[in-house]
Formats: sequence, structure tokens, C-alpha cells
Amino acid sequence: MMSVMPDIYLDNNATTQPLPQVVEAVERSLRDGWANPSSVHRAGQRVRQQVELARSQVCSVIGCKERELIFTSGATEACNLAIRGLTALRGRRRTIITTPTEHSAVREPCERLADEGWRIVQLPVGLDGLIDTNDLQSALTEHGDDVALVTSHWANNETGVIQPMVQIAELCKAAGVPLHTDATQAIGKLPMNVGELPIDALSLSAHKFHGPKGVGALFLRGNRRLKAQQLGGPHERQRRGGTENVPSIVGMGVAAEAAGQWLTTDGPQKVEALRDRFEQAVLEAVGDSAVNGTGAPRLLNTTNIGFAPLESEAILIMLSERGLYASAGAACSSGSLEASPVLLAMGIDEPTAHGSLRFSLSRFTTADEIDRAIELVPRVIGKLRTSMPRV
Amino acid sequence: MMSVMPDIYLDNNATTQPLPQVVEAVERSLRDGWANPSSVHRAGQRVRQQVELARSQVCSVIGCKERELIFTSGATEACNLAIRGLTALRGRRRTIITTPTEHSAVREPCERLADEGWRIVQLPVGLDGLIDTNDLQSALTEHGDDVALVTSHWANNETGVIQPMVQIAELCKAAGVPLHTDATQAIGKLPMNVGELPIDALSLSAHKFHGPKGVGALFLRGNRRLKAQQLGGPHERQRRGGTENVPSIVGMGVAAEAAGQWLTTDGPQKVEALRDRFEQAVLEAVGDSAVNGTGAPRLLNTTNIGFAPLESEAILIMLSERGLYASAGAACSSGSLEASPVLLAMGIDEPTAHGSLRFSLSRFTTADEIDRAIELVPRVIGKLRTSMPRV
Repeated sequence: MMSVMPDIYLDNNATTQPLPQVVEAVERSLRDGWANPSSVHRAGQRVRQQVELARSQVCSVIGCKERELIFTSGATEACNLAIRGLTALRGRRRTIITTPTEHSAVREPCERLADEGWRIVQLPVGLDGLIDTNDLQSALTEHGDDVALVTSHWANNETGVIQPMVQIAELCKAAGVPLHTDATQAIGKLPMNVGELPIDALSLSAHKFHGPKGVGALFLRGNRRLKAQQLGGPHERQRRGGTENVPSIVGMGVAAEAAGQWLTTDGPQKVEALRDRFEQAVLEAVGDSAVNGTGAPRLLNTTNIGFAPLESEAILIMLSERGLYASAGAACSSGSLEASPVLLAMGIDEPTAHGSLRFSLSRFTTADEIDRAIELVPRVIGKLRTSMPRV
Repeated sequence: MMSVMPDIYLDNNATTQPLPQVVEAVERSLRDGWANPSSVHRAGQRVRQQVELARSQVCSVIGCKERELIFTSGATEACNLAIRGLTALRGRRRTIITTPTEHSAVREPCERLADEGWRIVQLPVGLDGLIDTNDLQSALTEHGDDVALVTSHWANNETGVIQPMVQIAELCKAAGVPLHTDATQAIGKLPMNVGELPIDALSLSAHKFHGPKGVGALFLRGNRRLKAQQLGGPHERQRRGGTENVPSIVGMGVAAEAAGQWLTTDGPQKVEALRDRFEQAVLEAVGDSAVNGTGAPRLLNTTNIGFAPLESEAILIMLSERGLYASAGAACSSGSLEASPVLLAMGIDEPTAHGSLRFSLSRFTTADEIDRAIELVPRVIGKLRTSMPRV
């Protein structure tokens, strides 16, 4: 029906390959564990146990209690639920503090609230992509009792830049303001433990850590309440109605357990070494190229490189024809001819932003793939630059 | 990990067994088609084709155009999106006309709107479970320009009663009011063609017609606009943000195609004959038993039988221990000790409502299963009635 996945897949921040044991778990659930987990009968109760096992597996990776985890259809639903659901119970407060480099799953719900009269305070980010926690403190002080929520991603999907989540969480806690973090890109790449960090809500998606698409979760700290958004039954402790996506939840559990184990091995350092080797080789081989977000702590698997004055779409398509798969900006804004708002918010000039590519590795990325990518990328950039019309 | 599904599964309105070809399609997607369909590169574009093929397959079953179908995480999300999304663009209108026998996926969003000041008009249903279309006409006339939406299920999940959808649709069209129908239980059991019926929005879920859980769709007629509820990217033509649940969507496409084909065979009549044989045999063998919703057109696979003065939970558990799986009311309200609000709305007395069970067949149900169920159900009812304390 479809050929196997291609030579060099460097688009793991868009999505990752499901692990073989994940595929097997999903298949087993579809074949032998397909009853409704809400059913009273034995078949249903057996499936309920599978859902609750998966919940424990996911909770282990982030360090939360089972009752604190709400299964959703993905990180987008989780972010929407956190932002809508938490702000709905914050009385007369009408301010949200966020960053200009959020994924659209956070940015767009904030924009919708802005349309409804909310004040959205965007903290500036520097050329390195980081917010300054002094700015967060100032915003918390300035808007005081009007702040309903702080929502900041943990790690950026385009640049891999990691925000100072410990300081952000401590400032929010001191101010008594709930903090939601979109951790979609951080899960499975960074160790995390919400038991030790005063985060109130955290969104994640299985398909970013080798689980299936269509399933994610929202961690919600035990003492926090939210107003459910998807209504239709008492599922997930009245916080998300609808029959559970059992096979995908089971697959996410298996993927979460594997991600947690992988983080305890030397796997992460190996991926980081491959990323560093790729990045340095490309920078050396290609003139006028630069890494976006350099200087900040970054995810071990991500590099975002500017190749001005080329257009990223042209590079992407030529690389794709040669079997190398990367991206420009978020996958979900692909096809847009706008420069990445994330890069522009960092103060990166328009030509560079227009010509920037994201390469994102995974634990499946091999040294051979990186060798070939190091050969291929400079050749394609050179070819495109040579063929450009002279101004 | 889990034993195979048991002897007599008569809970197909709660969920159905995925077809073998659905399981294979999901597995293939997870193994070989896991790229992000929003990605520009070849791997992503191949997956995009799979998503669009599945869209065509689902559209064929209900007779709509591809651009009229929005993939969701299930019927619950679809119903929420229809009710929230359509009413948001209806100006100052603040009335919704509905029925008292909706699934919670419709009832609860309406209750939320009632909390926000909306008027929810519930048309009465008779002992047969049917609304009277004269009441609908009266409500449309009485509330006139204030009616934002009519939302009525097509077929009831508990009794199988089929509402007069042709007349409902024509009355709504004549009144110029958009009509949403929750067709979750009707899809795959009734032929339907929205090309010939002026329905504006229709919700469905794959796992009710032998597809996977966690995926559904909303049909939205081309000339209708709605306000997106889950925000996070331009997916589904700006109507539902978030990475598509590709493997489940692919599985739903295969299930939809199979359902459409099955409806053209003598399969439906065979299931109906099994249901009728079961129903008649139980009524004959068990004194003081009665079918709920009798006299109305009903889904071919469903029977809901009252065994007063027993408690349905006790019957269910005893049947489950003997390998027969049925339900009382909706699966998602299982464990509740309340009588079914659907049966009470029909005017069925409380003891009967408390002691009613739903048996729902599928194309996988065998004559042998029905033979054994006919032997088992009267025996269990008799045993429970004998052991009841005398009043």
C-alpha cells in the first residue's frame, strides 16, 4: 500500500516513528481488548484495567499521581483544555501571561480569549529564544490580582530552546498564579518530575515520543480544578467526556515507559552527539549559515539553521526529492509562505527566518543517516544558491 | 495479556469489535505511514493521501462531499463542536430545540448553554420514544427567530428508537433553522444520504461500526459555518486544530467502506431476525417483561427489555459471570444507580426503568450466541426473582 519510510528522517519534532512494541500493543488492544472500559461487565472491566495501567505508565514519566492525569486526543486538546478550563474558574481575573514563541495550540486559544476581551501579555524573548524571568516577575507584579494564568512552553518545537522552567514555576508559585506548560517537545527528551516542580498543568502528546497519534494527556495538579470543555459523560473524573481512545492510550503507555527507560541510558548523549556533528559540519560546509537559538539550552535532538537568502520551501522540496525529510517551522503551518513567527519573535531578520530549516533527530536516527545528511545538505544549498537570480 | 473476547457479546451499542481489515489498516499506518500529513516532504504527502482516501470512504457512506467532513476524536467531540460551533455564529438567538432522550454528548453541552442563559426546549417523547413532529413545528413557531439550532439524535442508543428524521429535517429547513443530528447509533445500521436530506450537521463515531475508538467525524453542510472549538493550526480547513489521528482515521475509512457494503447485503435482515427471535423468546419465557420503545421504528440490532422489579446492575453482573455481556443504559453512565433518564422521559415507570437491560447485536453475532442467550437470560431472571426478599 505504501513504501517503507525513507532514507533520512530528520523531522522528529513533527512526529516520530511508533516503536514496534507500541504497534504491537495497539494491535493487541484492537484485537483482544476492544470492549468499552465504562461497561460493567467483565470484558469492559478488563479493558478498564488496561487503561489504568497505561495511565500509571504515563504518570511515571512525569512524576504525577494517577488521578492527576487526564487522557485527551492529543496535546492540542490538552492545551486548549488547560487554557480554557483553568481560566474559566479564575473569577474576575482577565490577564494571561505567555510567550510569543508558543505553538499554535497555545497561541490560538489565547488569541480567542483576547477576542473575548482578555489581556494577553507576551513576555519578550531574546535572540537566544529565552524569556527573561525578570520580565515574568515584572508582569506578575504589574498585573497582580488580574493574572488568571501563566502559560509557557517548556521547549520550543522549532528551535529546541528550553525555557527556564524551574524559575518560571517558582515565580508563579510565589505569586499564587497557576502555571500551565506545553511540554509536548520536552517529554521523552528531558527528564521531568512535576512532583518536585510546582507546575499546575502540563500538556503532552504521545506521537512526539514514539507513541501513536491521536492521544495525549493533561497533567492537572490535585488541588487544581478546571471546567471541562468536552462534555458527554463522567469519563476522566468528569474532566473529559467521551469513550476513551483505548488502543492509543495503551500504546501511549508503552511508549511512555520506553521513553522513561531510554532517558536513563546513554541514548540521549548519542543523539546529542549526532546532532552536534551534523550542525557543526553543515555550518562549516555552508557559508552564511547560522544556528537559531544558539547560546540557549536546547533539546538534544533539534537544530534550526538559517540559509539566507534562500526560501526554506525550496530547500525542503529539493531535500525531500533526495530522500531527506526536514521542515520549516511547525508542521502544521507547512505550506504557509509566512516566515516563522517564532524566529521573528526572537529578532531574527526576515531573510534568515524565511530561509531557516529545522532538523530534528530521534533515538532511531543512525550515524549513517547523519553522514549522508552532512553530504547532502551543503550540496543542495550550494545548488540552490548558484541557481538564484542575481539581484 | 488478555483473554479473547467472550462467549456472548450483546453490547454492540456500547462498542463494536474492530473488523480484521480495520486492525490491519491501523497497523500498516503505524508501521509504514506514520509521517505527519501536514509535512511538505514526500513522506508527509503520502500520509496526507491516506487521510484523504479515508475521508472519501466515510463521505461515501453518508453521501456528503469531502470538504464537508471534519475528522474529530469521536462523536462526543463532534456533537460538542456542532452545538458550540454552530450556536456561536447565530447572532442573538438563544434557543435550542432538542429531545429529552439525547446521549450525554448532546445533553450536557445543552445544559452548559442553559447555565449560560440559553433556553433549551425539550420536545416531549411518547411511551414509544418518538417525538411528535407537530410539537417540533409548534416549538419552531413559538420561538421563531430566537431558535439558534435544532439538535435531535437519529436513533436512540438505549432503545434503538428511530426518530422521524425526514420530517424533522424538512420542518427545520422550512423554518430556516440549522439541524444537527447525533447519528452515532444510526451509521452502519441504516442507509443514509445527506445529499437527499436537508440535515446541516451530523455526528458519528467509528467504534460504533467496527472501526477503532478515538476517532469520529462531523458532517457540516457546505453552506454552513461554525466557530472552531479546538484551536491549534489550520487542520481540517480551519475547523479543528491538531495533528490528525492518522491510523484511526485510516481504520475508520476501512470500517466505513465495509459498513456501506454490508448495508447492501442481506446482513441487516439476518441481524434483525436474530434480534427478533431473541426478543420474542425472552418475552415468552419471562413473565412481567416488556420491550421499551415497542411500536416505534427501531434499529435492527437493539432491544431494551424491562424485568421489574429487579435491579439491572444485579442482572448484568450475573449475566457477565456467565459470559453474556449486555448493559443498562449508556455505557458511559454505568455504575450510576440512577434509572435511565431516557426511559423515564418516555414515561416508563421507575421500577421498570430500574430493571431494564439493553441487548445490542452486530454483524458478528451468531445464531449460536442467540440460542445460548435465549436459554441464559430467563434462567438468570428467574433465579434473581426467586431470591428476592418478599415484601
